[in-house]
Amino acid sequence: MAEITRLDTTAVDFWERLEGLLAWESVSDERVTTTVREILHRVRREGDAALLEYTNRFDRMSATAMAELEIPRARLQAALAGLPADQREALEVSVARLKAYHARQKQESWSYREADGTLLGQQITALDRVGLYVPGGKAAYPSSVLMNAIPAKVAGVPELIMVVPTPDGEVNPLVLAAAELCEVDRVFALGGAQAVAALAYGTETVPRVDKIVGPGNIYVATAKGMVYGTVGIDMIAGPSEILVVCDGKTDPDWVAMDLFSQAEHDEDAQPILVTPDGEFLEAVAASVARLLPEMERKAIIEKSLGARAALVKVRDLDEAVTVANFIAPEHLELSVDDPEAMAGRIRHAGAIFMGRYTAEAVGDYCAGPNHVLPTSRTARFSSPLGVYDFQKRSSLIMCSPEGATTLGRIASVFARGEGLTAHARSAEYRIKS
Amino acid sequence: MAEITRLDTTAVDFWERLEGLLAWESVSDERVTTTVREILHRVRREGDAALLEYTNRFDRMSATAMAELEIPRARLQAALAGLPADQREALEVSVARLKAYHARQKQESWSYREADGTLLGQQITALDRVGLYVPGGKAAYPSSVLMNAIPAKVAGVPELIMVVPTPDGEVNPLVLAAAELCEVDRVFALGGAQAVAALAYGTETVPRVDKIVGPGNIYVATAKGMVYGTVGIDMIAGPSEILVVCDGKTDPDWVAMDLFSQAEHDEDAQPILVTPDGEFLEAVAASVARLLPEMERKAIIEKSLGARAALVKVRDLDEAVTVANFIAPEHLELSVDDPEAMAGRIRHAGAIFMGRYTAEAVGDYCAGPNHVLPTSRTARFSSPLGVYDFQKRSSLIMCSPEGATTLGRIASVFARGEGLTAHARSAEYRIKS
Repeated sequence: MAEITRLDTTAVDFWERLEGLLAWESVSDERVTTTVREILHRVRREGDAALLEYTNRFDRMSATAMAELEIPRARLQAALAGLPADQREALEVSVARLKAYHARQKQESWSYREADGTLLGQQITALDRVGLYVPGGKAAYPSSVLMNAIPAKVAGVPELIMVVPTPDGEVNPLVLAAAELCEVDRVFALGGAQAVAALAYGTETVPRVDKIVGPGNIYVATAKGMVYGTVGIDMIAGPSEILVVCDGKTDPDWVAMDLFSQAEHDEDAQPILVTPDGEFLEAVAASVARLLPEMERKAIIEKSLGARAALVKVRDLDEAVTVANFIAPEHLELSVDDPEAMAGRIRHAGAIFMGRYTAEAVGDYCAGPNHVLPTSRTARFSSPLGVYDFQKRSSLIMCSPEGATTLGRIASVFARGEGLTAHARSAEYRIKS
Repeated sequence: MAEITRLDTTAVDFWERLEGLLAWESVSDERVTTTVREILHRVRREGDAALLEYTNRFDRMSATAMAELEIPRARLQAALAGLPADQREALEVSVARLKAYHARQKQESWSYREADGTLLGQQITALDRVGLYVPGGKAAYPSSVLMNAIPAKVAGVPELIMVVPTPDGEVNPLVLAAAELCEVDRVFALGGAQAVAALAYGTETVPRVDKIVGPGNIYVATAKGMVYGTVGIDMIAGPSEILVVCDGKTDPDWVAMDLFSQAEHDEDAQPILVTPDGEFLEAVAASVARLLPEMERKAIIEKSLGARAALVKVRDLDEAVTVANFIAPEHLELSVDDPEAMAGRIRHAGAIFMGRYTAEAVGDYCAGPNHVLPTSRTARFSSPLGVYDFQKRSSLIMCSPEGATTLGRIASVFARGEGLTAHARSAEYRIKS
């Protein structure tokens, strides 16, 4: 295999090289944009008819009415009932753990009264209706259903509509079982830009939602970008990343496998190790070389390691923290003696996995926190998917007559300073003389 | 003036007509897009040199070095010291009230331990550096500085960089004074897409930020849309809106002036009255006709009223709530007897102004809540600007050895079900046999 890039913070061009390695811009393809724009336009104008036509064409289906593309509840229940015991238990434990964690994210309305009786506050409400996109085919992950559906349900969203493409009529029973466990309200066998259009604009059959979440291919991502504003969307994710900070005292095989666990997602995935221990760095490189041939997804892992991975030697663990904050990784493993102290110094990361016993993989499935995390250094300004993404706030203001007088005088000075005299007079009407 | 549109919920085409009136799509202009793309590209590649050139050209300046375009602290202090007493007091009271309200939005980190010692939690951090865009010229509002700067400062953002264009060298002393009161860290005399580019990519002089907030013209909005992902941005706002729900017992002049206070912002602004009282509706129309000729911004108000306003007659106040939730207005006035009870039934609104004494205008300046609010029905899925927009979250997971065993077994079942064997093995390494 190609050598993994080695970087050393003592090199004069270190930061420049690191930044170059991290650079990621999704390719904007004129052809994709044009196709998606047309699909959105037609589904918006023609509704079910266009939706049926696109679905039959792209997913090689032969549906004659939209009713055939709704997957009935009974089929979800049957999928759940048909699962092997260990898979059902894994799903159930994970659902329970995710619910418990996410319940702590729920925000409540608040208000307070000032001395003159004026009330100020913030009212929290859940979104009315949310659309959940689940990819079909090889990337059909039941964990993705859990991670997107549970925060919406915990937020109190009354209606959750799932779309999942079923190319050639093939469905993944684990995905349907997960939908049943998460109490998804309706499921449609739809995918691609046409599914996004149906959710954003509504059709005769598919109800219009207020926000669309969930991962998808470039057509789905482009469509989500285009309907943003008409509906809310979650982030549009880049390739997955892991940064392992290690003091050199963890089994190098463990660290190598942790790097693999990101690399196996995608040829563009980015696994990085940062350590002050040069010998350990070489030991991990040796583990990588020894373990790689055993891996089922060897070809993908090898490409990711060759193109986007790095083994970074730092002066000390303080510098490792500096590098981690610069990278702002999606997943950050702190495989060190006192991970809690180190975590307190991390300013930017999607999720922090503390200690030698915390494999990133448990966070993907069942630890409790969400696996939808900010990628491509966006952890500098964004957060994991959470209950807060399915709640919104309305400011509350109720002036007492006295408050209207006090505040009206101030508002009047501002408004006249800004040349907005209707604002001024509207406030002045309420001033008691 | 043109008649204001009158709608009645008993008409068969009511909802269709209402939806038509609300429809708003910002025009995407090929010429603007091309211009902005070039400006972003050049500032990114050439830094200060391009920034100087564009600023001299677009703002008719003759700066020879970037240092001339930084507005020094002493000038902000002088602007504050030079304000008339009433303006200074208005600013100071407003800053104090905004800080008190926004302090309640601040989120804190949390964590909990499970029985086996596994720790789960969420760590909250402020963004490192934020850029605040303030428009120059006629739309130079000091209140805009307050509303964008204060939540960032309350969140704990260490560095706040403001940009404000100074066409022909002209600055608004109220804007500089507001920046001083809000403890803005640095101010540059820059505007347009070039200012957005400088903040997003950084130049030799302007530091790169993590998020850009604040209103601007179509060039600024387009530039913000294009740099989104490289940095965070706030929402891109549409025209301002007010919805007044009134039971007919408020002075019709007050309601007319409240409608004017939105209309005077912009010819595209949307003021709507909803009332079950037909006589009151006509009384408000009469007040509008009588008061309009007195208004300084009459021409703008008239266009807004003619094109986008509506007087809506509903069957009763229950139906008024239904209409309000359909519209999801930016500003909602509940000018009724029991506004608290009605507010509890509002699911979608940027800000709710309760009671006859609460003019929307006090919320624009000094009540405490933010005046940056979701427009164009996006209150269905988004919130006022707040402290939470300047904080972000990192998930925390620390498995005890026992937790690693329990969770590792579940993760392994999931991962093998999804065909991700590196995930499975990474978790299995930590299972105690």
